[in-house]
Amino acid sequence: MNFSSKLLEDAVNEFSKLPGVGQKTALRLVLHLLNKEQEEVELFGNALIRLRKEIKHCQVCHNISDNQLCSICAAAKREKEVICVVEDTRDVMAIENTGQYFGLYHVLGGLISPMDGIGPSDLFIDSLVQRVATTPVKEVILALSATMEGDTTLFYLYKRLKDFQIPITTIARGIAFGGELEYADEITLGRSIVTRVPYQTSLIK
Amino acid sequence: MNFSSKLLEDAVNEFSKLPGVGQKTALRLVLHLLNKEQEEVELFGNALIRLRKEIKHCQVCHNISDNQLCSICAAAKREKEVICVVEDTRDVMAIENTGQYFGLYHVLGGLISPMDGIGPSDLFIDSLVQRVATTPVKEVILALSATMEGDTTLFYLYKRLKDFQIPITTIARGIAFGGELEYADEITLGRSIVTRVPYQTSLIK
Ligand SMILES: [Zn+2]
Ligand SMILES: [Zn+2]
Repeated sequence: MNFSSKLLEDAVNEFSKLPGVGQKTALRLVLHLLNKEQEEVELFGNALIRLRKEIKHCQVCHNISDNQLCSICAAAKREKEVICVVEDTRDVMAIENTGQYFGLYHVLGGLISPMDGIGPSDLFIDSLVQRVATTPVKEVILALSATMEGDTTLFYLYKRLKDFQIPITTIARGIAFGGELEYADEITLGRSIVTRVPYQTSLIK
Repeated sequence: MNFSSKLLEDAVNEFSKLPGVGQKTALRLVLHLLNKEQEEVELFGNALIRLRKEIKHCQVCHNISDNQLCSICAAAKREKEVICVVEDTRDVMAIENTGQYFGLYHVLGGLISPMDGIGPSDLFIDSLVQRVATTPVKEVILALSATMEGDTTLFYLYKRLKDFQIPITTIARGIAFGGELEYADEITLGRSIVTRVPYQTSLIK
């Protein structure tokens, strides 16, 4: 691209470093910001800078947090003896959005992936074992993606946790609600038959 | 969305104000930035803030510029007696990228659009007339979008400029290079027949 302005070029280049943002999109977004009030652009830029500078991770569950203890771990009303293990903050948010879960979380910070050089020691797995060993835990729910990395991590966590003699569960796999059977992939469909459950008329409140 | 962090929520909300960026995309981009070094995020935020704060518009052609005079108007080698009139900076960049144009520009800052309340006085039209009236100009090229607003603006500019007795041209409309005839819309195809040109074997160098 031919830029008539170095300032414009810098801003577009910074934007196009973001995943999925090409130079044309970056230019469109930057020109949009140029039309905004200076205060608005400062709010935008400073919100990002402040986030990166001041963000903390919860000392218990490693979720993104403004304080030492995240708002979920700090809440009085959560079931503190149930831990749902997830890959990252997005999964916490997705599960919170369902309104169906009231326990605590444990954010691993990724999944075991030998291909990407990510081993157990790169994730918050020791601290999960520590939590289970030192606090009263009634159930550990492993809510990981149904991918090879997810399955690898699931199996590793199972091995590390099984001796504590507490129930270890995983989220149900199956045909999505609203999903048409004929379009489901074979593995999902096969597993959903093998793990079939008694018919319930009121599965979701 | 349920955010465990106000800082995260602020950053996601700022990002999702951008056109075409929903909350899910905003979250993905913000979490991407959280994984970057603090210095990188500061570069990003500050590039935007500096752009908005320090950007100028060329006093001659109104293109985005770091100085009073943009790099195109200031270049010694441009044909200074040809002016190409465009809607905005993106069009300047698109034409510069072709490598086929060596004159100057005039950036209108928009198109006449009664629907959006944009009239001639909201655009840099008087300053275009002023340029044509006070500097030697051999040709004015009107390179506007082939939309209703583009056509309205084209006609208005024609009325304002015609008495200066200089050639006023518009960019050729027609079937795009590589475009398949059967997929072209009727208006484009019709116009491209009416405005047909002698066959040339070396149209593009
Ligand atoms: Zn926490
Ligand atoms: Zn200029």
